[in-house]
Amino acid sequence: MSGLPETVDIEAAFARLRDHWSPRVVVQVNDQYVKVAKLLGELVWHRHTDEDELFYVVRGQLVIEYEADRSVTLGPGSIHVVPRGVLHNPVAREECWIVLVEPATTRHTGDVETPRTKSIADQLA
Amino acid sequence: MSGLPETVDIEAAFARLRDHWSPRVVVQVNDQYVKVAKLLGELVWHRHTDEDELFYVVRGQLVIEYEADRSVTLGPGSIHVVPRGVLHNPVAREECWIVLVEPATTRHTGDVETPRTKSIADQLA
Repeated sequence: MSGLPETVDIEAAFARLRDHWSPRVVVQVNDQYVKVAKLLGELVWHRHTDEDELFYVVRGQLVIEYEADRSVTLGPGSIHVVPRGVLHNPVAREECWIVLVEPATTRHTGDVETPRTKSIADQLA
Repeated sequence: MSGLPETVDIEAAFARLRDHWSPRVVVQVNDQYVKVAKLLGELVWHRHTDEDELFYVVRGQLVIEYEADRSVTLGPGSIHVVPRGVLHNPVAREECWIVLVEPATTRHTGDVETPRTKSIADQLA
């Protein structure tokens, strides 16, 4: 190890975020990326075939809609894992700040391509 | 999916913690465990040969000591990843609450066995 490992300040990471639904990688741990994102409105129904996705709400409120008109409502301090293969749709009726943990390979709109889809390169930029 | 995936409240998870240096698993995401722990004092110098370990400080202050008298000081909102193979020693001069992300296989004192070492079974109990 030459230099010391970096420390990321989460508030500063959120401060750098300009756009909604545009996750940014803050750090990698093993094969997972930790990302920050600001959400407002609705993303898109999608699933990640082989990848669990962890949501940790820092600010605001996030609804994860599931099939059969079911949903969970997450507030600050809530940790929720959407299991691999499960169809879901994140909805933020007010601005919501989240931390995500998911494999480095995960595409944030899963198997669905939308105008909002950000590549992994976008998320690292 | 039969029932909806569980939601964990992080404050409640910390409230259930009684002992220092006794991490508890709150959720699994892919091959990683997310754990909460309360720290006070010094753990032990150790390394995790093949596993990165993420520290996220929720409350208090944590110093990660590295070799050659180097260290980083983490406050609330700091995210820091100790890379695999790197010798380190966590020191909390005041009580510190942290979230850890590390592989499900990681032993919290690495390759060092101490009276404080908690098994993975302990951490899941």
